[in-house]
Amino acid sequence: MSSAMATVPKSELERRIRLVQGRMRERSPPLDALLVVQVADLYYLSGTIQQAHLLLPAEGEPRLLVRKVLERARSDSALDDVRPLASLKGLRDELESACGAAPWRLGMELDVLPVNLHRAYLDLLGAEAEVLDGSPLILAARAVKSPWEIEQIREAHRIHQRIFDEVPELLGGELTSYALQSILESRARLAGHCGVIRMRGLDVSTSIGIVVSGEEGALPSHSMFPIGGEGPHPSVAHGGSRRPLRDGLPIALDFLASTAGYHADCTRMAVKGELDAETAAIFEGIGRILRRLEGIVRAGAVPSRIYAAALEEAATEGLANGFMGPEKYQVRFVGHGVGLEVNEVPVLAPKFDEPLAAGNTLAVEPKFTHPRLGVIGLENTYLVRETGVENLTPYPEAVIRRR
Amino acid sequence: MSSAMATVPKSELERRIRLVQGRMRERSPPLDALLVVQVADLYYLSGTIQQAHLLLPAEGEPRLLVRKVLERARSDSALDDVRPLASLKGLRDELESACGAAPWRLGMELDVLPVNLHRAYLDLLGAEAEVLDGSPLILAARAVKSPWEIEQIREAHRIHQRIFDEVPELLGGELTSYALQSILESRARLAGHCGVIRMRGLDVSTSIGIVVSGEEGALPSHSMFPIGGEGPHPSVAHGGSRRPLRDGLPIALDFLASTAGYHADCTRMAVKGELDAETAAIFEGIGRILRRLEGIVRAGAVPSRIYAAALEEAATEGLANGFMGPEKYQVRFVGHGVGLEVNEVPVLAPKFDEPLAAGNTLAVEPKFTHPRLGVIGLENTYLVRETGVENLTPYPEAVIRRR
Repeated sequence: MSSAMATVPKSELERRIRLVQGRMRERSPPLDALLVVQVADLYYLSGTIQQAHLLLPAEGEPRLLVRKVLERARSDSALDDVRPLASLKGLRDELESACGAAPWRLGMELDVLPVNLHRAYLDLLGAEAEVLDGSPLILAARAVKSPWEIEQIREAHRIHQRIFDEVPELLGGELTSYALQSILESRARLAGHCGVIRMRGLDVSTSIGIVVSGEEGALPSHSMFPIGGEGPHPSVAHGGSRRPLRDGLPIALDFLASTAGYHADCTRMAVKGELDAETAAIFEGIGRILRRLEGIVRAGAVPSRIYAAALEEAATEGLANGFMGPEKYQVRFVGHGVGLEVNEVPVLAPKFDEPLAAGNTLAVEPKFTHPRLGVIGLENTYLVRETGVENLTPYPEAVIRRR
Repeated sequence: MSSAMATVPKSELERRIRLVQGRMRERSPPLDALLVVQVADLYYLSGTIQQAHLLLPAEGEPRLLVRKVLERARSDSALDDVRPLASLKGLRDELESACGAAPWRLGMELDVLPVNLHRAYLDLLGAEAEVLDGSPLILAARAVKSPWEIEQIREAHRIHQRIFDEVPELLGGELTSYALQSILESRARLAGHCGVIRMRGLDVSTSIGIVVSGEEGALPSHSMFPIGGEGPHPSVAHGGSRRPLRDGLPIALDFLASTAGYHADCTRMAVKGELDAETAAIFEGIGRILRRLEGIVRAGAVPSRIYAAALEEAATEGLANGFMGPEKYQVRFVGHGVGLEVNEVPVLAPKFDEPLAAGNTLAVEPKFTHPRLGVIGLENTYLVRETGVENLTPYPEAVIRRR
């Protein structure tokens, strides 16, 4: 069975494999092979998420060693060499046949691979395999998107168009923030979202969307996000709560969506009734900060300096205390890479000093937290070009109002 | 702000801490302390999911060392000693003050802790800290539920009642399996589901629910599940697809839900129109297998033998080829622990030879995959008692039909 949505074409896989192999050889010390097991990386380099190992030698063709459904892996993946791996004990032989005799310098995804699994691989591969962290070079390759990938991200943003269009009518009813969040999540799925949001790291996860309004929105994140929220219960502790949305308070809608594995990230504001002058003034300030950032993000610009500029601009607008989170709990970034995962590099944050490259896709999200009003912010996803940015988020930035 | 849903009472935390400390001391070699970082374990032992470390010495009181929101950690958690941890560099001092001078034998969750994080902890703690795998003893403690925990799991099953009650009406419309899945997921949230499903392990995740019907349901899982499905796209590759549900084909509804962090797991069948005689006969066979398993699950019964009995019973019913997954891709279990995570111990599977204990909560899920009809199965969550089981899943097992 095939799906109407795009699958990863062979030319894409070939481009990615060449890119990653180049980085393997340029690395110091160079890697003889990568053994890829994490789902987003596996999908990036093979086009399938079947339980498998992708064995990629620094020269030559990759082998997709499939543990689960071989037929499906062969139909999902455009790779030529898709073969079964009956037992993990076969890995050493595969490595030898792909890379020649031991010793080998092997890259694995040590930022996500659990310790016990890592030890099991070391036992299987033996002392002649030195296992190093291969994630940085995979992530660096993933950070520069092809035109095909950009089209997927553009498509994912069309889902936002469809769900935000439904907000005015939904605001007519009596709803809690969690209920609005839940309804919009479902509408996103019905509008094409594939149902999975991928974030990299232990216990780093988020829902498709977050809806917060007023005081509850001012509760800081338990994790790494600029928006926290009360959540429906302490076991979740983020996003919407079981409190009704109130007239006149700003409602922040921070939504993800994914099609063909690629994510869109977008934040818009809504209100039942009218915003007061204070909120409107903050919202205008946020808009000006976003315009300023749009003016400086381009290939060659340095992420840490863009972040510093965002802080400056926030100070100029009188929004320094509460910028990117409530006071004391401000997160130290103003944007992040978006692609097969939501927390990709580059990050617009201190210490990210490597210049942006054309093809980076960045969610830029100036947000201000006010103790009583909650979160007031905007977020668009941009394609970084040589001369500036292209906004991949088509939805108008104006506050969404009840019809 | 507080939530109406139950938070973890102090008496619960005290019971859990005593249980885990007992296992730390009985372990060979014994542990001096546990340093807990994973979200489900952290919530189990503290009642909060704020980014934190729980430092639990083998004797004495635990300290919750909070990295993120201290105020919220203090309001969510009934522990006495909830304090900030300004920098990870403070961990060594905390360990020394809780456990006395080095050396220390420390348990961490090595089944989930990524290699790079583990190395960072080893650097912080120094060579005098030996770090061993603490997960097995935490998971063994978590496997035996208290009356309070059982009440949470019971409550979570009430969500199924509410969503399955809506299925007859939904079946009246034209829907794809993915659309029905998406709508029921949203209804589950509106009915009390907290929006997060927790599974343990790298890339082990699932949606709230899976809806498959006919041929698409016969596609094997890319991962560890008895039900696979086509999914909306190869980047997701499980669950419902964008194909319309057809009259007369069995529709499998496998749904999770969580309240207060605790999960319910339940599978029911539905149909638009009438089931044919072949499907009805298979469904009756599945019902008899489930009755047989209900008759043998009790404290003292051995999981691997229960699994063997399930296979025997499936053979007797003529359902051996396709039991627990399509031929060639059958998963080797017939039930699993359910609690703060969906893939808990004990597992009704080969090699699980430790007898069941009163207080275990098990999802038992005989399922048969037919190449044309898809998945036909049932799943209830049971409380293991001394003399048998109590079914925590109140929903009738009859096939749900369009009104």
